[in-house]
Amino acid sequence: MHTTEIKVRGYHLDVFGHVNNARYLEFLEEARWAIFDDKLDLENLARDGFAFTVVNININYRSPALLYDVLVVETHLAKIGQRSAVLHQHVKKKNGETVVDADVTFVMLETKTQKAAVLEGRLRDSLMRAIEG
Amino acid sequence: MHTTEIKVRGYHLDVFGHVNNARYLEFLEEARWAIFDDKLDLENLARDGFAFTVVNININYRSPALLYDVLVVETHLAKIGQRSAVLHQHVKKKNGETVVDADVTFVMLETKTQKAAVLEGRLRDSLMRAIEG
Amino acid sequence: MHTTEIKVRGYHLDVFGHVNNARYLEFLEEARWAIFDDKLDLENLARDGFAFTVVNININYRSPALLYDVLVVETHLAKIGQRSAVLHQHVKKKNGETVVDADVTFVMLETKTQKAAVLEGRLRDSLMRAIEG
Amino acid sequence: MHTTEIKVRGYHLDVFGHVNNARYLEFLEEARWAIFDDKLDLENLARDGFAFTVVNININYRSPALLYDVLVVETHLAKIGQRSAVLHQHVKKKNGETVVDADVTFVMLETKTQKAAVLEGRLRDSLMRAIEG
Repeated sequence: MHTTEIKVRGYHLDVFGHVNNARYLEFLEEARWAIFDDKLDLENLARDGFAFTVVNININYRSPALLYDVLVVETHLAKIGQRSAVLHQHVKKKNGETVVDADVTFVMLETKTQKAAVLEGRLRDSLMRAIEG
Repeated sequence: MHTTEIKVRGYHLDVFGHVNNARYLEFLEEARWAIFDDKLDLENLARDGFAFTVVNININYRSPALLYDVLVVETHLAKIGQRSAVLHQHVKKKNGETVVDADVTFVMLETKTQKAAVLEGRLRDSLMRAIEG
Repeated sequence: MHTTEIKVRGYHLDVFGHVNNARYLEFLEEARWAIFDDKLDLENLARDGFAFTVVNININYRSPALLYDVLVVETHLAKIGQRSAVLHQHVKKKNGETVVDADVTFVMLETKTQKAAVLEGRLRDSLMRAIEG
Repeated sequence: MHTTEIKVRGYHLDVFGHVNNARYLEFLEEARWAIFDDKLDLENLARDGFAFTVVNININYRSPALLYDVLVVETHLAKIGQRSAVLHQHVKKKNGETVVDADVTFVMLETKTQKAAVLEGRLRDSLMRAIEG
């Protein structure tokens, strides 16, 4: 499990005074980049010809986040299949209330063939180490 | 079926030269507002105590959109249930290639009770007229 | 003078119910891309080794734009100097009220030298034709 | 002088692989909110009938920020006048290279009269304490 903190600012909100739907996807992406910072070397993967590519996001908007809320984004590897894997991302308020949860399905695109690589060997290991650990 | 056109600009793209995941949610929202412009009177609904509220988005990223692409967002009402309904939104290039498709589940929140209203009578009619027609 | 229309949507607004400061820069950029669409061939310029590059924006926030406002962005070439030029961009409501005005100073960067090109000959002509005319 | 750190992510960049012009305004706003967090109580000011309102931004784009750059936003009160004040915000890379600098002119709008308040007494003191100190 990996956690990232994000403070809700005035520019994150929309006309309803809630964090906007699209902005949450930036919060989720921010949390994924934070994992890459810490543990998954995207530049090395790129040199090896692989690109982390999101193919589906299934996101539930549970309760609105408001100005001054401090959000915690928890990310873990929920499933790793043959050619795709699923990150579960959970956005909570400090009091534990769920704001958003999402399943983010990704593949490791082979940049040469533009096909999803088989997640085995070193590739599978580095994903599991980075996101699970 | 309702259609909206969006031209892909430099500021829509991210480091990979593709329209960013979060930006597509703005494109989908833009298409929904265009329906509201034309046919669904959100202000009247607000006066009656209802707020159009998205509770889930399930979005597939099929192929990347690039600079200068002209995208067509098609929106139709895929399902209308007891208390929630689903818009299907399909983003294509001019040549017909699918870029993104998404199911957007929404409720009509009763602002007084903060519960999802039953979609019946005038409320159901106005939704169906607006989005289906 | 070139004009672009933009409708203010819920996702353009911030916690104050006004179009957010940063979002106006996207509106201004949208209007510049619309000029490029119509008249200035950025791809040709890129092939010739030039990149349109903004070096300064001086923007006045005069009065707030609100949900459902239809904004008109007027753009014209205010000044063309030796190595830089200034676009004036003026955002109004339909009733003529000024929302924002901005001077946008740009250079044509020579991609090889990373220096601002002298704005003369064909380069100067194509800029003046595109944006003035 | 107040400092905020921001890491450049893939979704901050645009088609040119640089942080987009509009996004920098969000970085500057993020740094201003961080000051409000720490020292300037916007909620108290709102109760007293004042709203922090930006009226002009004059921003120089000096050199592009790239993926993985860690940016430092320095903010200080450059000038405090009769009814308006100027924040200077300076965005640097860790190696000291300037990326962007901006003067942000703001007023404290009296929400009742919609006029800029005279910056004196408690109002002036709290601004100076918050942003200078």
